[in-house]
Amino acid sequence: MTFEEARGSFPVLERYAYLNAGSVGPLAQRTYDAMVDAGRAELGPRGGTAAFDRIIEARNGLRSLLARLIGVDDGRLALTTSTSEACRIVVSGLGLGADDEVVTTDAEHFGLLGPLHASGARVRLARVRNRPPSEALEAILAEVGPRTKLVALSHVLWLNGHLIPVEELQDALSAPLLVDGAQSVGAIAVDAEPFDFYTVSGQKWLCGPTPTGALYVREPERLRVAGPSYFSQASYEPDGAFVPRDGAARFEQNWIPAAFIAGLEAAIAAAPDWRFARAREMTDLCRERLHDAGHDVVTHPGQGTLVSWRWAGDTKEAVTGLYQHGVVVRDLPGTGLLRASCGYWTNEDDIDRLVGGLSAL
Amino acid sequence: MTFEEARGSFPVLERYAYLNAGSVGPLAQRTYDAMVDAGRAELGPRGGTAAFDRIIEARNGLRSLLARLIGVDDGRLALTTSTSEACRIVVSGLGLGADDEVVTTDAEHFGLLGPLHASGARVRLARVRNRPPSEALEAILAEVGPRTKLVALSHVLWLNGHLIPVEELQDALSAPLLVDGAQSVGAIAVDAEPFDFYTVSGQKWLCGPTPTGALYVREPERLRVAGPSYFSQASYEPDGAFVPRDGAARFEQNWIPAAFIAGLEAAIAAAPDWRFARAREMTDLCRERLHDAGHDVVTHPGQGTLVSWRWAGDTKEAVTGLYQHGVVVRDLPGTGLLRASCGYWTNEDDIDRLVGGLSAL
Repeated sequence: MTFEEARGSFPVLERYAYLNAGSVGPLAQRTYDAMVDAGRAELGPRGGTAAFDRIIEARNGLRSLLARLIGVDDGRLALTTSTSEACRIVVSGLGLGADDEVVTTDAEHFGLLGPLHASGARVRLARVRNRPPSEALEAILAEVGPRTKLVALSHVLWLNGHLIPVEELQDALSAPLLVDGAQSVGAIAVDAEPFDFYTVSGQKWLCGPTPTGALYVREPERLRVAGPSYFSQASYEPDGAFVPRDGAARFEQNWIPAAFIAGLEAAIAAAPDWRFARAREMTDLCRERLHDAGHDVVTHPGQGTLVSWRWAGDTKEAVTGLYQHGVVVRDLPGTGLLRASCGYWTNEDDIDRLVGGLSAL
Repeated sequence: MTFEEARGSFPVLERYAYLNAGSVGPLAQRTYDAMVDAGRAELGPRGGTAAFDRIIEARNGLRSLLARLIGVDDGRLALTTSTSEACRIVVSGLGLGADDEVVTTDAEHFGLLGPLHASGARVRLARVRNRPPSEALEAILAEVGPRTKLVALSHVLWLNGHLIPVEELQDALSAPLLVDGAQSVGAIAVDAEPFDFYTVSGQKWLCGPTPTGALYVREPERLRVAGPSYFSQASYEPDGAFVPRDGAARFEQNWIPAAFIAGLEAAIAAAPDWRFARAREMTDLCRERLHDAGHDVVTHPGQGTLVSWRWAGDTKEAVTGLYQHGVVVRDLPGTGLLRASCGYWTNEDDIDRLVGGLSAL
């Protein structure tokens, strides 16, 4: 697949410099078409045994596909609706309390922070956001102590795109490590196998339907099923006591429409094998062009595929102004930062339009 | 709207005697069309501010619509993906432990039982399933004691369609009452206002997309947000401490696609005002015809819109056999029961085909 073919599959790119896959990726026409086609079956006997069997089989297929994508065994992968749901599943399953500590960073999304706080454990924040990425490991390990029951953080920080050295971190830790892959899977190569827990978003860099996602659990038997659903059990007693399903599927909480399974599969199948190299190249270019235009870029080189820079004015107004110029980025509330997301579909013109749009504000 | 018009809106009814709305309702062509139309917007800049604002507005609209449907204030309604999710939100929010007791019945779905068991509280089962509905209230109250922190049960039992006298129960209780409305909302008239908690399914009797639903919380400020999502907070601190959003919206956990909001709205708008009377009439007819044909019907007259009867053979095989005759019902594993769901769209021919199909097995 050529670059032009890949780019041409996303209708939004005909009109917009769409640079916000970190919130939600562009949707390909064929992904939409796959959803519409699969959804049509719902007009038939959607509550029949055949429909139910089909969806169970489709779930199995999607689980395998996502597992392969991040290099893990499909018995250790649960389908979720989002990385936020995946984080809730892990944090609630650990049964933390007031005597426990969890370590995270000062650059995490509320989808992770909220569940950490709600666990009742003391949340310790490693200060990584305003430091060079090379200092992150030390900053995180400095917060880990004998009461640490979980270290939970992003592989790629949503606020500045910095890569956390999660492999080194996993090696250095005895406490479990939850890696939030919201800004990594589909954007950079990911091998999730070494980690205790790893979350996947389907709607961001994989360009799938919203909401879709997954959770890798290396040792499913060691995490409690705190929020059981019908999908969690192989059998159950009248009082709700249950034998969990084999593997990580026990953590699955939600029905996933056939349309969404088909859509995510189509989106993943369409991603070209040169995607990571191209996304890297475009991110570096975006960073350089912003820097050359005089913007205060906070993202270091060679990180993930997000680029953030300081904006002296009102960031929300800037985002609205750029949108009117056909440029889609996002503001990061409370930080004074704007953020651009570069994917394999991004071209130089998108970046020029961003830089030009910023000048015109 | 005439009966023929209403029935004609569901393509599945052209070929099937579709009697399984208790699992998932028939989908109208216009509901599917509304989903496809609303979904098309995703091909545009779906991660832009405008798209996000639209979905927030659409969520507000859906919340109001569902609140009106069950006679409650929309500030006390949370959008969920299912009644199971709604049950998890309530049970986890109560922070139950080993010293607490919860009371439920011996005729509940795992979507409620699983979270009750996972709470760690002792689960006490009121034996209502094999008793006449008139004895249910007494059987439930007999299980309630000083350690009861929650009574949680269905308005209409999924195993036999019996109505639980939840109004009398709420009046008699000092402990909070969670009413699972999976088999009631859309099937019978529901006024949820008096209850502490009430769950709604969008995909069953309301004939909306799967998965959709809601949770009514009479006093949102008194239930802890145990599983916070980005939707839960009005503002938050770096350690995840947060000010909850006003009202029950704080309990919302998942993104709901614009297509699903549009689909559920279209489905609700299309329901005729004679729906409850017609569903009542068809359920009574179904019950009588099964009885007259010699089946051992376990459902008493004048209950919900489900009818269950004993089947001497393999119930799973019976369901498959009926499906081959174009009749869609479900088996209730472990009970020896088959179950038919009658809606306002059901006609006499559907019931004749069910009775005929059973004879032919």
